[in-house]
Amino acid sequence: MVFLFRRERCDFMLNTGSFVLKGNIFYSKAPDEIICVPEGFIVCVHGKVRGVYEVLPKQYANINIIDYGDKIIIPGLTDIHTHAPQYSFRGLGMDLELIEWLNRNAFPEEAKYSDLDYAGKAYTIFANDLKKSATTRACIFGTIHVEATKLLMDLLEETGLKCMVGKVNMDRNCPEYLCESGSVADTRKWLQEVAHEYENVTPILTPRFFPACSETLLEGLSRIQKEFNLPVQSHLSENLAEVEWVKELFPEALSYGDAYNRFELFGKEAPTVMAHCVYITEGEIELMKRNGVFVAHCPESNTNLSSGIAPVRAYLNHKLNVGLGTDMAAGSSNSIFKAMTGAIQVSKLRWRLADQSLKPLTVEEAFYLGTKGGGAFFGKTGSFEEGYEFDAVVLDDSNILHPQPLTLKERLERIIYLSDDRNIHDKYVAGRRIGKAIETGFDNTLGLTGVD
Amino acid sequence: MVFLFRRERCDFMLNTGSFVLKGNIFYSKAPDEIICVPEGFIVCVHGKVRGVYEVLPKQYANINIIDYGDKIIIPGLTDIHTHAPQYSFRGLGMDLELIEWLNRNAFPEEAKYSDLDYAGKAYTIFANDLKKSATTRACIFGTIHVEATKLLMDLLEETGLKCMVGKVNMDRNCPEYLCESGSVADTRKWLQEVAHEYENVTPILTPRFFPACSETLLEGLSRIQKEFNLPVQSHLSENLAEVEWVKELFPEALSYGDAYNRFELFGKEAPTVMAHCVYITEGEIELMKRNGVFVAHCPESNTNLSSGIAPVRAYLNHKLNVGLGTDMAAGSSNSIFKAMTGAIQVSKLRWRLADQSLKPLTVEEAFYLGTKGGGAFFGKTGSFEEGYEFDAVVLDDSNILHPQPLTLKERLERIIYLSDDRNIHDKYVAGRRIGKAIETGFDNTLGLTGVD
Repeated sequence: MVFLFRRERCDFMLNTGSFVLKGNIFYSKAPDEIICVPEGFIVCVHGKVRGVYEVLPKQYANINIIDYGDKIIIPGLTDIHTHAPQYSFRGLGMDLELIEWLNRNAFPEEAKYSDLDYAGKAYTIFANDLKKSATTRACIFGTIHVEATKLLMDLLEETGLKCMVGKVNMDRNCPEYLCESGSVADTRKWLQEVAHEYENVTPILTPRFFPACSETLLEGLSRIQKEFNLPVQSHLSENLAEVEWVKELFPEALSYGDAYNRFELFGKEAPTVMAHCVYITEGEIELMKRNGVFVAHCPESNTNLSSGIAPVRAYLNHKLNVGLGTDMAAGSSNSIFKAMTGAIQVSKLRWRLADQSLKPLTVEEAFYLGTKGGGAFFGKTGSFEEGYEFDAVVLDDSNILHPQPLTLKERLERIIYLSDDRNIHDKYVAGRRIGKAIETGFDNTLGLTGVD
Repeated sequence: MVFLFRRERCDFMLNTGSFVLKGNIFYSKAPDEIICVPEGFIVCVHGKVRGVYEVLPKQYANINIIDYGDKIIIPGLTDIHTHAPQYSFRGLGMDLELIEWLNRNAFPEEAKYSDLDYAGKAYTIFANDLKKSATTRACIFGTIHVEATKLLMDLLEETGLKCMVGKVNMDRNCPEYLCESGSVADTRKWLQEVAHEYENVTPILTPRFFPACSETLLEGLSRIQKEFNLPVQSHLSENLAEVEWVKELFPEALSYGDAYNRFELFGKEAPTVMAHCVYITEGEIELMKRNGVFVAHCPESNTNLSSGIAPVRAYLNHKLNVGLGTDMAAGSSNSIFKAMTGAIQVSKLRWRLADQSLKPLTVEEAFYLGTKGGGAFFGKTGSFEEGYEFDAVVLDDSNILHPQPLTLKERLERIIYLSDDRNIHDKYVAGRRIGKAIETGFDNTLGLTGVD
C-alpha cells in the first residue's frame, strides 16, 4: 500500500510535465556531433525540452529537480521498424533467407493472432519487454487481424511509450490463411474504431510489402491514407530475390521504390518509413530524398536473413532520413543499443568486403541514428534541443565494472556496446515519467528535491 | 553463517566427483550432430562422464542425483582466445584497425599491469565475470609482467574454471614500455614459480604475434616449449596489413604460418592455438591440418577491427580443429554464446558479400564450435560422451518468455541467441560444482536427492 501511495504521488508530481533532471547529459545535434553536459540540467516545460544547462537558470529554480547523481541521461531511443507478432519467435529458425523465412516462420506465427487469447499473451510479453528497453518510441507492424491489432494498441497505450501501430495489409502471394479478401474495408473499420481511443498510440498504414499487395489494394490504401491522413510503413529492397520479384510483378516501375511511388505510397503524401533498403539505386535515393522517405536500417535482421548490408554511409552522404530498426524477429533483440553496435559492425564488414569508398560508421553516428535520426519520424523527438518532445532514458552503468577512470564519453560508449535492460534506470516519454517496466513498477528511490 | 555451512556441506557432497544430473541434456558429437536427451540423466564418476541415459541404469541408483527439473544442461563452453588485461576497455575505442588499435588502446592499457594493485582490481573483475558466464575453460593472454600474470592465475584458480594462462612475450615492434629485454629469462622464472602451484590453472607459451617477437626470442621460446612441455597460443593472419608485414619481416617463410613453423611453434611439437586465421592460404591450411593447429575463430573481434571474416566453413570442410574465441577487448563480450551467434552471422555476410561457395554456418555447427570444437584443445572436454571431463552448464531460460509451446531444440536456440549471465543457473568443471559467481556464492535451492 505504501508503494502504491508513493507511486501515485510520484506520478502526480510529474504529470504537470514541468521539471528538471540533473545528471550527465548526452544528445546528438548532427550525425557527427554529440553534445555532452557533465552534471548538467535538462529543463522540461509542459512535456517539451526548454534547454540543457551547465548551471540551472534562476527562472527554473522553483520547479522540481530530480537528481540522478552520476547517472547518464540520453534521449529516448526510437525503433522505426519492428514486428510485434514475431517477437514470440525471436532467436529461432534463423537458417533461412527472406521469402522462405516468411513462409516457414513469420506467416504461420502471424496466423495465430486470429486468436485473441494467444494475441493477448504474446503482445503482453512484447509490450513489457519494450517498456524495459531503452526505446521510447516505435513503429510497429501488427498482423492482418483488426481485433488483435487493437489489443496490441491497448497494451502499448498502457506502457506510456509512443507507438505507431499498423494493421498489416496483404492480399496476394501469401498463404491462404493470411490472404485478405476485404483488406481495405477491414482497414477502414480498424481506423474508425481506434480513432480518438488513445493518447500514446496512433495508427500507421502498413502494406506488408509490394509483392504481397495487389494493385487494387495499393490503390485502396492510397485513398485511405489521404482520407485519414496517415503515415506509412513498409519494406523496400531487403533481398535480391525480392527486388527481382518486384520487377517481374510491376515491370513498368523504374525501381522498387518507384512502384510504391506510383501508388502514392512513397513519402510525397505522408511521412513514410521503408525498412531495409539494402539494394537501392541512385534513382531511388534521389526519389527518397525528394519525398523525405525514411530508411529504417535493420542491421541484425539483414545479417540473420543473409540479406546483405545496407550502404548507410551513402544514405548519410546523400542526407537521407535514416534511423534504426530492430526488425524482430529477423532481428533477435529489441534493443536499439544493439542496433547501434550492429550498424557500426556491418558497416565495417561492408567496407572490408565490398566497398572501401564508404567508410564505416562511427559510434557518434550510430548514436545519432538511434536517437535523433529515427526520432525525426515522430517529429521533434530524439534530442534535447529546445522544443523537442521530452523523451529521456536514465542509465545506470554502475554494474559494468572497470578498474580505470573513464571519461563520460567512454561510459556512453560502453553503455552502447555492453548494456542490457538492467542498466535502464528510468524512462520519460513526452514529459511523463513512465518508469522502466510494468511488472516492477516505479523505482521510488530517486532523490526528489525542490518539491513544493 | 548458515550460508557458509550449507556451502561447505554442498561442496563436500559433490567433491567426490561422482553424481548424477537430471535435466534436458544437449551435447554435440559432430559439427552437424547435436544429441538431445529430454529429462535425461548424466552420470559423472570421478569427474568424468560415464554416460547419458534416458533411464538411469540401476548401478548408479545409489549416487546423488541433482534434479534440475525442466532446465537445460549443456557441456561447459570453451573460449580458446581472449586477453584478460584488455577486459577493462571492452566496448571502447572501436573505430580503429588492428595495428593502430594495438598502439592506441591495447599497449597503453597493458603497460598498467606493472602495477599489481591495478592488476588486482582489473583481474578480479575479469575473473568474476568469466565465472558468471557459461564458459568453463579458457585460453588467456596476460601481459609481459610475471607478477601480474601470477596474480591472474591466482584469481582464476579460485574460480574453479580450468584456464591456460600465458605471460606474453614481445621484444620488437612495440612501444618501449612493453618491449622486453629479458623475455626468455622472465618466462623461465615465471614457469618455475608457477609449477605445481595450481590445480585448475596451467601455463601456456604466449608469443604475442610474429611481428612483435624477434627471431632470437622465438628460438628461445621454442627451447622453453620443449623444456617445459607447454602448449602454445598466438595470433595468425588477422589483418591484411599484418600479413604483409610478416612477409616483409621474414621473407624466407612460405606463409605466416610457416614463419611460426620454422621456429617449431606451430603445432608439431605441442598443442597450439592460433587466433583469427582470417587470411590463410591453402598451403597454410594443409600445414595446420598436418600439425593439428587449432583455429580460434573470433567473429566479433574480426568485425570490430574491420579485419574481415574467416572462412570457417572451409576449415570445417578441411577437418581442421576449430573453436571460438571472444578475443576481448577487440570483442566486447565474454560470452561464447555471443561468439556462436556471431560466427553464424558473419558466415552469412561472407556468403552474401564474398563467396557463395562457402555455405553459412548453422546453429548446430556454432554450438559444436563453442563446446566440443574448442573444448578439444583441453583434451576430452566439451561433450557428454563417455570419458569426457565433466564440464556442464545448467541453464534456466524461464525469464525468456514466450506465448507458444517450444521444443527443447528451440529452447536451446533461444538460449544461444538471447541468454545472458542471468540464465546461467549452475556450473560444473571437471566434476566439481563451482556455482556461477564469486560474489553471490552458490545457489543452495537445488533439490538434492539420494544423498547418503
